[in-house]
Amino acid sequence: MGEQYLAKVYITLKPGVLDPQGEAVKQGLVTMGYEGVKEVRVGKYLEVLLEAEDGHEAFKQVDEMCRRLLSNPVIERYRCEIAGSREDGET
Amino acid sequence: MGEQYLAKVYITLKPGVLDPQGEAVKQGLVTMGYEGVKEVRVGKYLEVLLEAEDGHEAFKQVDEMCRRLLSNPVIERYRCEIAGSREDGET
Repeated sequence: MGEQYLAKVYITLKPGVLDPQGEAVKQGLVTMGYEGVKEVRVGKYLEVLLEAEDGHEAFKQVDEMCRRLLSNPVIERYRCEIAGSREDGET
Repeated sequence: MGEQYLAKVYITLKPGVLDPQGEAVKQGLVTMGYEGVKEVRVGKYLEVLLEAEDGHEAFKQVDEMCRRLLSNPVIERYRCEIAGSREDGET
């Protein structure tokens, strides 16, 4: 049933949402001597391998997954893209 | 001292490293009816805003941060890129 597609999903906190994890990473970097670091925001990156009829259908499904499960639309925003099949994608 | 640069960092588990979080997300998606989902891998996505003399220096610093703090080189690999200053970057 269809081909396999590799989707890449990027999930970030909306601007203005506090990011304590990012703040902790920033403080760690500054303490290590990277004094030029002004801000760090931590998000998620997911790779989803799925079977679908075509790339359009694959994108539609992944976009829906992002809204329904992968991201929290109240505080996060997401971006997804179809990066081809795993076979012809990056290693 | 220099300009502000926005660096994007993608951290993923190396192939072969078990990803229980990804497995849980996959099971959740299948349970929700996305039966085409074959595999999910969960990684991190970070945005680092930093001051540096130029883009080359900014990249060098972020690459070093990835090796020293942001990623675990035993089980993870990383990719970083300089995406311009926040002002002229994406919203």
